[in-house]
Amino acid sequence: MLQAAIISKPLKPELATILADLIAWLKAHNYGYLLDPDSAVYLNAPNAVERTEMPSHNPNLVIVLGGDGTLLAAARAFARTTIPILSVNLGSLGFLTEIPLSDLYPTLEAWCHNCAEIEVRSMMHASLIRNGDVIQRWDALNDVVVAKGTIARMGDFSVEIDRQLVASFRADGIIVSTPTGSTAYNLAANGPIVMPNVNALLVTPICPHLLTIRPIVVPGESTVSVHVVGVPNEIYLTVDGQEAIELQLDDYVHCQRSEAAVRLLRHQPNGLFSVLRSKLKWGER
Amino acid sequence: MLQAAIISKPLKPELATILADLIAWLKAHNYGYLLDPDSAVYLNAPNAVERTEMPSHNPNLVIVLGGDGTLLAAARAFARTTIPILSVNLGSLGFLTEIPLSDLYPTLEAWCHNCAEIEVRSMMHASLIRNGDVIQRWDALNDVVVAKGTIARMGDFSVEIDRQLVASFRADGIIVSTPTGSTAYNLAANGPIVMPNVNALLVTPICPHLLTIRPIVVPGESTVSVHVVGVPNEIYLTVDGQEAIELQLDDYVHCQRSEAAVRLLRHQPNGLFSVLRSKLKWGER
Amino acid sequence: MLQAAIISKPLKPELATILADLIAWLKAHNYGYLLDPDSAVYLNAPNAVERTEMPSHNPNLVIVLGGDGTLLAAARAFARTTIPILSVNLGSLGFLTEIPLSDLYPTLEAWCHNCAEIEVRSMMHASLIRNGDVIQRWDALNDVVVAKGTIARMGDFSVEIDRQLVASFRADGIIVSTPTGSTAYNLAANGPIVMPNVNALLVTPICPHLLTIRPIVVPGESTVSVHVVGVPNEIYLTVDGQEAIELQLDDYVHCQRSEAAVRLLRHQPNGLFSVLRSKLKWGER
Amino acid sequence: MLQAAIISKPLKPELATILADLIAWLKAHNYGYLLDPDSAVYLNAPNAVERTEMPSHNPNLVIVLGGDGTLLAAARAFARTTIPILSVNLGSLGFLTEIPLSDLYPTLEAWCHNCAEIEVRSMMHASLIRNGDVIQRWDALNDVVVAKGTIARMGDFSVEIDRQLVASFRADGIIVSTPTGSTAYNLAANGPIVMPNVNALLVTPICPHLLTIRPIVVPGESTVSVHVVGVPNEIYLTVDGQEAIELQLDDYVHCQRSEAAVRLLRHQPNGLFSVLRSKLKWGER
Repeated sequence: MLQAAIISKPLKPELATILADLIAWLKAHNYGYLLDPDSAVYLNAPNAVERTEMPSHNPNLVIVLGGDGTLLAAARAFARTTIPILSVNLGSLGFLTEIPLSDLYPTLEAWCHNCAEIEVRSMMHASLIRNGDVIQRWDALNDVVVAKGTIARMGDFSVEIDRQLVASFRADGIIVSTPTGSTAYNLAANGPIVMPNVNALLVTPICPHLLTIRPIVVPGESTVSVHVVGVPNEIYLTVDGQEAIELQLDDYVHCQRSEAAVRLLRHQPNGLFSVLRSKLKWGER
Repeated sequence: MLQAAIISKPLKPELATILADLIAWLKAHNYGYLLDPDSAVYLNAPNAVERTEMPSHNPNLVIVLGGDGTLLAAARAFARTTIPILSVNLGSLGFLTEIPLSDLYPTLEAWCHNCAEIEVRSMMHASLIRNGDVIQRWDALNDVVVAKGTIARMGDFSVEIDRQLVASFRADGIIVSTPTGSTAYNLAANGPIVMPNVNALLVTPICPHLLTIRPIVVPGESTVSVHVVGVPNEIYLTVDGQEAIELQLDDYVHCQRSEAAVRLLRHQPNGLFSVLRSKLKWGER
Repeated sequence: MLQAAIISKPLKPELATILADLIAWLKAHNYGYLLDPDSAVYLNAPNAVERTEMPSHNPNLVIVLGGDGTLLAAARAFARTTIPILSVNLGSLGFLTEIPLSDLYPTLEAWCHNCAEIEVRSMMHASLIRNGDVIQRWDALNDVVVAKGTIARMGDFSVEIDRQLVASFRADGIIVSTPTGSTAYNLAANGPIVMPNVNALLVTPICPHLLTIRPIVVPGESTVSVHVVGVPNEIYLTVDGQEAIELQLDDYVHCQRSEAAVRLLRHQPNGLFSVLRSKLKWGER
Repeated sequence: MLQAAIISKPLKPELATILADLIAWLKAHNYGYLLDPDSAVYLNAPNAVERTEMPSHNPNLVIVLGGDGTLLAAARAFARTTIPILSVNLGSLGFLTEIPLSDLYPTLEAWCHNCAEIEVRSMMHASLIRNGDVIQRWDALNDVVVAKGTIARMGDFSVEIDRQLVASFRADGIIVSTPTGSTAYNLAANGPIVMPNVNALLVTPICPHLLTIRPIVVPGESTVSVHVVGVPNEIYLTVDGQEAIELQLDDYVHCQRSEAAVRLLRHQPNGLFSVLRSKLKWGER
């Protein structure tokens, strides 16, 4: 029996009904389902499966009900699989999760009939190197940020590309992002928009003291390294906007395109630019 | 007897000799002097005076030996006095403390002969309002920064000018700066340079999610308020790059031009633009 | 008899009715009126008065029907008078002419009862110096732009403030603007917003080759000079977006706050920030 | 006999000696040579060959003596060949032509011994479409610029990628650049740096009135089209900074990666970032 893994954002009252309807649809179509703990709460269902455990149940489809944050979490959990994700945005339209609730059932129908679109978004692999050892690894869909902590004082960083020094400078921090992440934090830090099908990574300084540094678009085959060369105050690493890891002097963060990727399901081709025009109020004609 | 208050940056080995020479000069010219604890360390002198206690001794002159940070600290300590400050920059030329060590004695000589230049730099007064009460106050020479803490997730702020809403937006933070501070953090956050004799405050968003917001130059008579309207994570207040105070939901930070000012002593008129040309590599002709 | 001078934008069909109604209102209230040639066309009226001739008729009020461009032209014509201007914006809301058509009669009524608001917007005086002689002068409400001509190749400029060199650099051009003009071309060139009541001028480079140069806010008492120091191709001067004057090597353009000012009439206080929030989609709360 | 085509910048007096030495070296190594008209002037040589005629003589190597402009012209002339270009920069170090004069003979020696590095820089093909017909074509190494003419008033443009509308907006203009051109005009217009080996084109608005538009990095396989949708004043097309072509309402400029490429010769691997660090004063470590 085909099976869907359902992941929900907590504390959205409207999800109780939406989930009940979705379960009914799945049963009517003879699908099984797994509920993550947040989904189970809405339904008072007894048997929740932790998100990180879900891939081992080999579901055929992941259904995400929430916002960009919920999708980022689901993407990390399923990064090393090829299971497609149908992601519904319940709030204001996100850059990532462009399917509104009204497209949920049309997309499920399309998927049943094997005619849904799958858009592959490449991810990035990051590793933290301390004293020559890899001490932690992550997959990121959007970005890896190395930045100062609470005091409004700059950190001191070097950027290397394929082990060659690019520049050393003081800044609030540095964003390394995927093309997908170019419309996230990078946009606020004055970086360019990179179309998802460009094979590249993007390095964007955050409030650099060095006025001549610029966002740099790097080939997708390259390794971008951020080297912490001065710590006037705490420096933190944040992956996809999740919890922060404190860094130490001389830590390196290496970022590379990952073999992992997210497969986003739609019932019609995605119009990146129509999302941008709508969200950024770009002119229509 | 005229008296000089001496404030030094710690941990600069060359200061031992510089201070010994300065003391000899002061004695030879029949001046008294006060040493702050950091200065006393270099000289093994027993009687240090805390910086915050120095103004009550009514010195006639403050001599600062260090960098921009040392001057910022001295400026706060003497903000409510009219005592002039002779500030020597021992490191790379700062925007604020433009006198190199070679100008120390020419400036002291000029001061003895009442022919030194005094440049008045206006300061800003900030107060933190919680539940309708002023709970803390500061004088700032450069800037007041309200910004997110360790996690790379945005805060939610409103800016008001004279109690009228300007805009509400998500951002890493907001800088309110004096004209003097316009060449500090503001410059890294893409703000304009404001000449010190413009009667104005400057409000600069840091990495705003709202792409249409811009730095705003406000009349010197206005009150700029930053209102913390959402705290997805910790928000901190930093004054002149010093220690950070954690803010709470619904806190207000009010900023106004202060009646306090710093009187910087020079032996010749200050060339702001020659400093900028040198530091920012602007073209000469 | 009190008299209104009427200035209209050409080629707006709806103006035939609007003007007929306005004339009826003026007659009913016992006012005289002057029509500029563009207004006369809509009414088939025989006796038009050139805009530049209108001030010599000493009207008590100027009524502008059009957009920002029409107001900029009217402002120049009446710059050296104290006659208030009631400016109606018929198109999309402009930054300058914030009165919609629906406010026309309420504002006229307020003016009749001496209870209209008058907002004074300071202007800028520009003069072109060639070989030591002033060869032309202008009053500008928004900005004076010195910029390259048709070929996409940079010019070479120096900026001086009160005859002191600020910087020399290659760029597409330089904008010198009033606070009012800060929301015009300056905004597109990445300059800050300067509130109208700040006593300042604003110098903004357009696409500078020198990456460290920034917009500079200058005291209202200063003279800003743009010096043409290299002409790899033609360089032009444009005042308030009107016709372009070709400049020569070594020309100087001096800009100062003008004693001229525009008096804008409203029936209620102007909310600059509500206009900005509306036009720039800044967040409400 | 192997043959070198020599292209020189005019009006550089030092070139007389440099060229005489180069000719002597070529003769001593048994090479033939072709002189372009500018080179011939320095040597009083009778037989110059027009640059556009040079490719038909099938030289084995092109030697360019000048600056970025001379190389851009040589690149266009040899775009449809595979002949390598050895480009010496005689002025301030350019972004493109990074070989100083001191590297001329080491690079020639390396080339003789077949151990020179060849760096391939991809070019862009542009075509101007009017009323459905291609009326002109160009190869560009740096950029294609569609921008307003002399008056400081904006044009009205649409950008399409693969015939899909991206955005319509008013601006001074639009730059479409290759990765190589990302360090040229694009940098002044606040665009990112794109490494030469990224397979992409870059679209950068110049002073857009629409504050939310950003530089966009597009896959190298895409066609970027700039559509002239409003002509409040003249609009011009400039290719690699050369002469300007006036555009008309409804003209389209299509830009694609070209099959043409430039082969730049060096005696050691090119350090893009060491050039950037030197030119942009990026910090060393």
